[in-house]
Amino acid sequence: MMEIYEMSLGELDSGLRAGAFSLSEVFESLVNRIEAREKITQAFIELDLDFVRNQIDQINSQDRATRISGIPFGVKDIFNTKDWVTSYGSRIFEGHQPLCDAAVVSQLRSAGGVVMGKTVTTEFAYFFPGKTRNPHHPDHTPGGSSQGSAAAVADFMLPFAIGSQTAASVIRPAAFCGVVGYKASAGQFPLNGALTLSYSMDSLGFFVRSVEDLQLLRNVLLGVSPKATALKPRKIGLVRTPFWSELDSESQLLIEAAGSDLTESGIELIEVDVDGQAGVNLVDAHQTLMAFEVSRSRAAEYENHREKLSDQFTQLVEVGRQISYQAYEEALKQRDSAEKRLRTEFADCDLFLTASAPGEAPKGLSSTGDPKFSRAWNLIGGPSVTLPAGKGRTALPLGVQLVGHLNKDDDLIAHAGWIQRNIQLGSSN
Amino acid sequence: MMEIYEMSLGELDSGLRAGAFSLSEVFESLVNRIEAREKITQAFIELDLDFVRNQIDQINSQDRATRISGIPFGVKDIFNTKDWVTSYGSRIFEGHQPLCDAAVVSQLRSAGGVVMGKTVTTEFAYFFPGKTRNPHHPDHTPGGSSQGSAAAVADFMLPFAIGSQTAASVIRPAAFCGVVGYKASAGQFPLNGALTLSYSMDSLGFFVRSVEDLQLLRNVLLGVSPKATALKPRKIGLVRTPFWSELDSESQLLIEAAGSDLTESGIELIEVDVDGQAGVNLVDAHQTLMAFEVSRSRAAEYENHREKLSDQFTQLVEVGRQISYQAYEEALKQRDSAEKRLRTEFADCDLFLTASAPGEAPKGLSSTGDPKFSRAWNLIGGPSVTLPAGKGRTALPLGVQLVGHLNKDDDLIAHAGWIQRNIQLGSSN
Repeated sequence: MMEIYEMSLGELDSGLRAGAFSLSEVFESLVNRIEAREKITQAFIELDLDFVRNQIDQINSQDRATRISGIPFGVKDIFNTKDWVTSYGSRIFEGHQPLCDAAVVSQLRSAGGVVMGKTVTTEFAYFFPGKTRNPHHPDHTPGGSSQGSAAAVADFMLPFAIGSQTAASVIRPAAFCGVVGYKASAGQFPLNGALTLSYSMDSLGFFVRSVEDLQLLRNVLLGVSPKATALKPRKIGLVRTPFWSELDSESQLLIEAAGSDLTESGIELIEVDVDGQAGVNLVDAHQTLMAFEVSRSRAAEYENHREKLSDQFTQLVEVGRQISYQAYEEALKQRDSAEKRLRTEFADCDLFLTASAPGEAPKGLSSTGDPKFSRAWNLIGGPSVTLPAGKGRTALPLGVQLVGHLNKDDDLIAHAGWIQRNIQLGSSN
Repeated sequence: MMEIYEMSLGELDSGLRAGAFSLSEVFESLVNRIEAREKITQAFIELDLDFVRNQIDQINSQDRATRISGIPFGVKDIFNTKDWVTSYGSRIFEGHQPLCDAAVVSQLRSAGGVVMGKTVTTEFAYFFPGKTRNPHHPDHTPGGSSQGSAAAVADFMLPFAIGSQTAASVIRPAAFCGVVGYKASAGQFPLNGALTLSYSMDSLGFFVRSVEDLQLLRNVLLGVSPKATALKPRKIGLVRTPFWSELDSESQLLIEAAGSDLTESGIELIEVDVDGQAGVNLVDAHQTLMAFEVSRSRAAEYENHREKLSDQFTQLVEVGRQISYQAYEEALKQRDSAEKRLRTEFADCDLFLTASAPGEAPKGLSSTGDPKFSRAWNLIGGPSVTLPAGKGRTALPLGVQLVGHLNKDDDLIAHAGWIQRNIQLGSSN
């Protein structure tokens, strides 16, 4: 029988509505799991189970005003919380207590969600890692930057958690940890009260167990009513990327097998080269945009607290300061033309299938892995979903990345829902 | 002879480089002006002249690393400052002391600028006004929301000041106070560390005396080298807007006279209807987007501190909560199609000429005036400049609004520079 802590948001809501279990039982099931696993995985940077238990005790299990009423969730420590210290993974903000919740945290709370704790982020959601370990093997990175959120959901300590992404901070840890990850279109959700890096590219993300839970969360936050839970795509663009040879062989096989399976289901599959130049320029453009914008957006930390920044972060700011405005404008133009190309030339592709990461989570905790496979998509700004896709050669999870058109998040999620239900991803591994 | 406090940034920099006066003399000239005028105009919410004098005393007047080295400036109290209380015009944040400067504040400081004080903002940069009065008549509003910044520059208490705009918060107070106002393209500058309202539309603004000062500030912050100080436009689109009849007769005359003078200078002038439906839909779309996004972005203040919000702000959030996601998406589509129309059908218009406000600053301090003439442009997201344009019937300032294409801020500023030098705006009044 399925443990409560293994359930998706939809399953928890159904069980609570049916009276199969109470909110208190949901909470204690997650607590048991946290007590068993957290000392290994270390997904939380702030955790106070008694404090949360008090809140849960005051909620009536029968009162399900929304589908997340009384449901515990995790908040990446990039998002402000009015009753939890928020340090953004940075020594500069040790012990920092915000006055107000970040906008999405407040929205989730007003819909009845309960903050279970703050999850580990890399420093300012960039590369310098936190303490979190991969739930599937503690010597391997869970990926970054939303490492605590991905690991906590993957390790069944939370049914869902918030993340954010500028390069690959949701898509990659979701793949490394073996959970569903969703990076929203830039601008779909407010990032007010979150520490952000790139004003043109940052966006919100979620880690969940089931694609349908993404629809549930979008319904709660935006009032979206999905057209269909799962929608069969008609045409999919397969994007090998210029880095195909850097994918490990299991990941190559996985994507090719997924392509075959989709074709066998009657879905048309074409090979797509996103910018007509094998995507290399887009990865460069992403790095240009990110460094230029970070050197502006985080100017205060660099100017006033440089001694508390990691070398990686300092270097990013310094690279950004050397980028000319002309080079920045050129990167914006490359983004616009790639977005236009997808919207016009590949308008009939319902989604694009590609890699989430170069392979399994690398060994070691000093790096969070390579964001290369998400940079171009993050530049363009549309939605992406990582679906778990079996295991790689050392029995660590693999994922595939599904990418949608800008602001067509609901379409992507409905198509990803169909794929999750109908295609056995990674079955050949 | 010109007083130091009357000088533009360019004039101050030249005088300092030539040794005509020292930084200390610049500061004391502004202090004298503040001591004479602030008790009437009330542009500052936080002011501590001795604290600033100490900083000025430590700067060598000869060391002009940048063109704003040692120059005092004003910061709208929507932007965080590490050594000044920042309350966002809200009772919720009374006495709030941020840990870090907002990104642009930090950038201006690292370029040598000195924060002279925090300027008054309406509550959260929306409608509920602060204490500031119009420098030209204390019974009239200076406009909003960047009311202190506009009034302080207009009243010669500061050579430049930062603002921000979601609807008309730079363009309108610049017109009401008779200074140059610039609202940047959305996304040109970081708003990190600023309290923001709309994640799709908010942008940074500046109040200055001369259009050339905008180029100077963009050079300092972005490293932009302007192609030309002033560039003669070839073609201008005159936009009467559907609210032409609501413009007072002096403003109608002013815009028509400006159009004639531009034509006489050999510039082609055409009448433009921005969305092919007289712009009415765009104003509605702006209001839809703004209310929907504010109801999300400021959810925390609404959920946890409603008793300290004005009725206007509470109502905005509540209106936004009633807007369906479908209506929000429709507004985004209208924006995209208007932006595309400008970019394609009217690509050969170098800029668009229209009203900044319905006329002179209205009497009374309980309202900041009507943002109607900026909403459509703010929705589209491109840059706007207000140029002062003489006086209206009760001897209060009038302005005209010049609007550029999205992300073509430098082109707009160069064209506005030419117009400021070559056309006697408001000469017929």
